[in-house]
Amino acid sequence: MNAAADLAELKQRLQIISDLHGARAVLSWDQQTYMPPGGAAARGRQLALLSGLEHGRITDPEIGRLLDALTPWAETQDSDSDAAALIRVARRDYDRAARVPNAFVQRLSEHTAKTYHAWESARPANDFAAVRPLLETTVAMSRELAGFYPGYAHPYDPLIDHAEDGMTVATVRKLFAELRAGLVPLIDAIRRRPQLDDRCLSGNFPESAQRAFGERVARGFGYDFERGRQDKTAHPFMIKLGRGDVRITTRYREDDLSDGLFSTMHETGHAMYEQGVADTLDGTPLFGGTTAGVHESQSRLWENLVGRSRAFWRHWYARLQDTFPDALRSVHVDTFYRAINKVAPSLIRTDADEVTYNLHVMLRFDLELALLEGTLSVADLPEAWRSRTRDDLGVEAPADRIGALQAVHWYGGIVGGAFQSYTLGNIMSAQFFAAARRDIPDLDDQIGAAQFTPLRGWLTERIYRHGRKFTAPEIVERATGEPLSIAPYLAYLNGKYGELYGL
Amino acid sequence: MNAAADLAELKQRLQIISDLHGARAVLSWDQQTYMPPGGAAARGRQLALLSGLEHGRITDPEIGRLLDALTPWAETQDSDSDAAALIRVARRDYDRAARVPNAFVQRLSEHTAKTYHAWESARPANDFAAVRPLLETTVAMSRELAGFYPGYAHPYDPLIDHAEDGMTVATVRKLFAELRAGLVPLIDAIRRRPQLDDRCLSGNFPESAQRAFGERVARGFGYDFERGRQDKTAHPFMIKLGRGDVRITTRYREDDLSDGLFSTMHETGHAMYEQGVADTLDGTPLFGGTTAGVHESQSRLWENLVGRSRAFWRHWYARLQDTFPDALRSVHVDTFYRAINKVAPSLIRTDADEVTYNLHVMLRFDLELALLEGTLSVADLPEAWRSRTRDDLGVEAPADRIGALQAVHWYGGIVGGAFQSYTLGNIMSAQFFAAARRDIPDLDDQIGAAQFTPLRGWLTERIYRHGRKFTAPEIVERATGEPLSIAPYLAYLNGKYGELYGL
Repeated sequence: MNAAADLAELKQRLQIISDLHGARAVLSWDQQTYMPPGGAAARGRQLALLSGLEHGRITDPEIGRLLDALTPWAETQDSDSDAAALIRVARRDYDRAARVPNAFVQRLSEHTAKTYHAWESARPANDFAAVRPLLETTVAMSRELAGFYPGYAHPYDPLIDHAEDGMTVATVRKLFAELRAGLVPLIDAIRRRPQLDDRCLSGNFPESAQRAFGERVARGFGYDFERGRQDKTAHPFMIKLGRGDVRITTRYREDDLSDGLFSTMHETGHAMYEQGVADTLDGTPLFGGTTAGVHESQSRLWENLVGRSRAFWRHWYARLQDTFPDALRSVHVDTFYRAINKVAPSLIRTDADEVTYNLHVMLRFDLELALLEGTLSVADLPEAWRSRTRDDLGVEAPADRIGALQAVHWYGGIVGGAFQSYTLGNIMSAQFFAAARRDIPDLDDQIGAAQFTPLRGWLTERIYRHGRKFTAPEIVERATGEPLSIAPYLAYLNGKYGELYGL
Repeated sequence: MNAAADLAELKQRLQIISDLHGARAVLSWDQQTYMPPGGAAARGRQLALLSGLEHGRITDPEIGRLLDALTPWAETQDSDSDAAALIRVARRDYDRAARVPNAFVQRLSEHTAKTYHAWESARPANDFAAVRPLLETTVAMSRELAGFYPGYAHPYDPLIDHAEDGMTVATVRKLFAELRAGLVPLIDAIRRRPQLDDRCLSGNFPESAQRAFGERVARGFGYDFERGRQDKTAHPFMIKLGRGDVRITTRYREDDLSDGLFSTMHETGHAMYEQGVADTLDGTPLFGGTTAGVHESQSRLWENLVGRSRAFWRHWYARLQDTFPDALRSVHVDTFYRAINKVAPSLIRTDADEVTYNLHVMLRFDLELALLEGTLSVADLPEAWRSRTRDDLGVEAPADRIGALQAVHWYGGIVGGAFQSYTLGNIMSAQFFAAARRDIPDLDDQIGAAQFTPLRGWLTERIYRHGRKFTAPEIVERATGEPLSIAPYLAYLNGKYGELYGL
């Protein structure tokens, strides 16, 4: 009786939080797509206002009271049920938010806005000194934030835990060390082989044709444009504005085919995850992807495991040739397949190939841990970045612009907790794909015939529909029957690149 | 001392109301431009939430207390000062909003949403019966709303007063009767003359070229695209999303040149008014156009007094011919000028020419007054519409779709208070333009040379910059030195159409 009334009251409050969050997403989407420059100041104020209203609702002690009252009841429910998961996740969100004083949230938000603004001009000007004092404050505030959560084994565990429930510095370090031990020999072996030729990806690829082709692929994967849309932005992203409204953005370079094409596939993967969450979870904190890593596993799965596979291009390559006849008419599908899978150490994470990509992530992860632990000073960061790039990737960063100033994360948020999820996503993408292949024996033939419904159905059933009901380790275990492991990922990379480079 | 603190507190509260309003405008703009169909339900909820938050802040008794405390102080200030105007206008807004119980606001908002939804399918289906009971409730609720404001001479004065401060049923009736007495003989005289030929406006006008030309004209008028933008919607509108962000929308018909062209000029007029309000008024209720009628005077001034003038096309017609060479190469500018000013009684208000347009408005105004006074039943509305159209315009409405179902206002809001402002806007547009011409003797030559800065400067100085500081009668008197009068408008119509039709 009491529980039913409390649950109804809680759900109503969570619905309002969810709607405030959606409203803020609309403002943010518009800010990055169509807002005229003159609107920036007012928009900043509107966003801060909605953010404050949302934070106020999230940390309202009445939510704490309702959760206290409902916890004993939730413990009598099946722990897989929506109701039990709702109380579990709402409790986690509430406890996290309520531990941080409002004054700190406000101070951090103002500092972050100022730092981001400074970074926007410091990066093109290659002027690390201009952001150095700001970044020092960011490191200090990141430590302060972590300090609100005592009782973790490593002081920065809470920062990782917020992005990836249950992950710790120790777990990530161990996984990364194992992965590194597998990657380095592969990269060395590739380096000793003749390089693949990717010249066919450069040329003249009109934007409107790229856009039409990208949307055809997105639709083919199963992205529902009745519940989404695609627009252009400086940096591609996926954003959910509310139930039935999950949008993606992309960008195009007319002299290069791969940037727009693979970023469209990537964002489509994120968007299909959000579109696949069960509508019955709408209005609750369960209505969204579970962690940053699982989210990234879906963008990378569709971009790489599907989009850079030989099978995928069996059907789609002829369509691509029809779209760009001048550039691709005389390029064989095998040449194209090799071009989109060329491995070459480079300086920019987002442009990196599948094999060296994770070294970029490890570099950032290790440097940010060192900053937080105090073994690296902000002043020494540019040189540490350069030397690590030299050691790991064998390339020389000619400027901080594409070195220590590269990672927007540190200048638009806190230091700590963002990077590990990129590599965790890669690891999980291969584990999920291997499990799907086990369950769908003719998966490659289906992909080759442009039939994505069975794969998307498998992912929806095992991952998407659950939203945030389960943590990343839980969802991996449920979907694949195994705990998280780097083995499928290394097997995938060794198999694919072994064949490509004749190792 | 106290006044300064109270004023700061009041301004902070008003700023939040203004930011909530702006946030709602972003959601509404997106809903009408780019939102995918699947997002409709969530967006409705988000809009209702923001609307409720805004209403709660507007009617917060603390605002009443601050206004009570500040009124004696404001009376010591120069009544033309921003501070005095702020207290005056905020007081008016607060008293209006606070008189209406929250429960009624909620009920009206739900009823309106339901009615609008029903109208959206009833109109194309020509099914007046489907909305009849809903419209009956709307009429009853409009009466109920008016009832919250006792003490007016006519019970529906408050509905008009909300759109046009200080206007009454009696004033509008008198103005409309005088105007009608001037218009009917002009229309009769035109009817007896040979018709003008407007075939040159039909043809093939590619959308992208229409868009480019329209934006060139808008820019030429002085609309600032750094603080605005133009998109496509089913029905053109202007909307302010915040300081520095005033957008317009338009639509195009590729077989017809005039729809997109003149609606772009119209919305540009609205937008330049908003862009011209002094930035010092930002964050207060003064930061916007003063009344619906004055707003319409600016859209109609730029669309008609400028855009349909002979002088305007002296410069621009060659550019239009260059844009549509096939359609217009052999059309003389005089032929084009006559075509865009053809007078022909028709069924749709928004398509009506300058001369017959006001008869559409009077018809609606009289019918809604009759509905509110109870001398006309909703059941008899379709026949009343038909018979009045026959009598006034000499045309027969073949279906309710373009009869009693035409006016979105009654199905998307209350009945009463919306229509008078269209004609008041026309009347004022001519009075403002005549005053500008008196102050800028070579105005026609400037327009002929595509020099709009002096005219826009005059309008900004006399009207735009003041925002809502003054009422419509005050702004007319200040800008023109005369009280509101139909004389300049009739003189303009008689002069222009007398020459066009050789009367």
